[in-house]
Amino acid sequence: MRITILSGGVGGARFTLGVLAALPDAEVTVIANVGDDLEHWGLHVSPDVDTVLYTLAGRVGAAGWGVRDDSRHALATVRELGGADWFILGDHDLGLHVVRTQRLAASEPLSAIVADVAARMGVGARILPATDARLRTVMMTDEGELAFQDWLVRRRAEPVVRSIRFDGAGAPAAPGVLEAIATADRVLLAPSNPFISLDPILAVAGVREALESRRATVVAVSPIIAGRAVKGPLGELLDWLGHERSTVGVARYLAPLVGTFVLDAADRARAADVRALGLRPVVTDTLMADAAARTALAHVALTT
Amino acid sequence: MRITILSGGVGGARFTLGVLAALPDAEVTVIANVGDDLEHWGLHVSPDVDTVLYTLAGRVGAAGWGVRDDSRHALATVRELGGADWFILGDHDLGLHVVRTQRLAASEPLSAIVADVAARMGVGARILPATDARLRTVMMTDEGELAFQDWLVRRRAEPVVRSIRFDGAGAPAAPGVLEAIATADRVLLAPSNPFISLDPILAVAGVREALESRRATVVAVSPIIAGRAVKGPLGELLDWLGHERSTVGVARYLAPLVGTFVLDAADRARAADVRALGLRPVVTDTLMADAAARTALAHVALTT
Repeated sequence: MRITILSGGVGGARFTLGVLAALPDAEVTVIANVGDDLEHWGLHVSPDVDTVLYTLAGRVGAAGWGVRDDSRHALATVRELGGADWFILGDHDLGLHVVRTQRLAASEPLSAIVADVAARMGVGARILPATDARLRTVMMTDEGELAFQDWLVRRRAEPVVRSIRFDGAGAPAAPGVLEAIATADRVLLAPSNPFISLDPILAVAGVREALESRRATVVAVSPIIAGRAVKGPLGELLDWLGHERSTVGVARYLAPLVGTFVLDAADRARAADVRALGLRPVVTDTLMADAAARTALAHVALTT
Repeated sequence: MRITILSGGVGGARFTLGVLAALPDAEVTVIANVGDDLEHWGLHVSPDVDTVLYTLAGRVGAAGWGVRDDSRHALATVRELGGADWFILGDHDLGLHVVRTQRLAASEPLSAIVADVAARMGVGARILPATDARLRTVMMTDEGELAFQDWLVRRRAEPVVRSIRFDGAGAPAAPGVLEAIATADRVLLAPSNPFISLDPILAVAGVREALESRRATVVAVSPIIAGRAVKGPLGELLDWLGHERSTVGVARYLAPLVGTFVLDAADRARAADVRALGLRPVVTDTLMADAAARTALAHVALTT
């Protein structure tokens, strides 16, 4: 069975672990967001790709990103010397950024680098960055344009967002991305933020159309429970961008692409509203509190 | 009292500690070799400058370079991922290279960066890279040209050296370098390798002439004891480059620049040969086995 997952960072990575546990023999492809990539300390950092990578390699940090129990000695020196210390890079993690930056500078495509790193780290699933080209999420805020990580990390997601644009929208999909959508038995939209995790993937040439043409096989899992985001600034973004701050707001936004929408039991009363959008609602527990919960959630998304 | 020291890495750094201990009120300037700088992992690394920096900051590693008790977690990842692992960069150390590279990319001169870093690390002496321009030591070997660290570290100083050249020879001296030589009460050539530590400094425009014109005040300390280098491949280089493998071979090489030559008690019998070169020989213990020994050596070099 071929499963393709569109994923942002922490939530999508954990959901993918659930899919791998629920369906150990499946051929799983994760199409990962690169819109939040950044150049930091002169290095190319791919936060979402790396979160997926480290999670699937069994070495992710307790916070859901970075390497577990990593030291931060380079950061300590950078801080002591007055350098940029607002974005945390651990020491083990830094080695990956060094290698990726060197190989990108030698004109190797990001997707080839990620495939090699994943293989060396023993990751079984295929991880595809959505594109090998430069594609960056830019937040248009009340305080002007902010690069994504500037907004999220340096400014703690505080500046009010009026719209979001993607520098490099229309970039060609990385090799395998469109095929992975076209040939999957099921396409899963992980419980990731639709505006800053899924939209940058959809901004890649052909991805939106590929999903629309397979809408019946596309299952999305809601990242909102009882009006609250499981993680990150999704509630505020729904408000700021003029959407209903609820699972229905997300369902409405994704409706053109999705056949089935998995929502939390806490939102059971909204199932009819989801159905009214032309989506088949499936109600289950969506909070991935532990391995059993994420496997159960994946099982529902895979079998519903 | 103004003291200016020309220095390579470990030996020069330790000798400078001795000078600072022997003459606590002196105004000390260290002119450091940048010929062994390299770009590694996309970062600008200045091994000799950093050895001086870390040594004077009291945080140098036991081997004489790097940061004491530094971790090597980034290196472990680079190695795991098949990246270049032949040059050891510790994690704390890496932070300095990141900051330097970023600031160089922003067009700040190396000398200004080093001055700021030294101040932040609480270094009292002034550390001047010999030049802010690119100047690189290139080893012409039986196996072709090798960048200095390629020869020394990656190839373990094994390829036979036929000659040495300096890419960027004639580069302008960094601000303060020529003045530090011209105005010093005493100029000290640290017990550093003349070919790969001192010569790249002498390749900077005006440095050789500045020393020649102050020859009477220039004191060199021999890096050779009883025909053996205290550290590094100096013995082999003397052989390969056609010099006598002894303290006299070094004295002869440095004679145009030096008024006084400090040689080890083990070479006492060669003092007359040194004198015959037109240098004033001073015999003392030159092995810097501990703090007392390096202070005693510095005291001799400062008062002779």
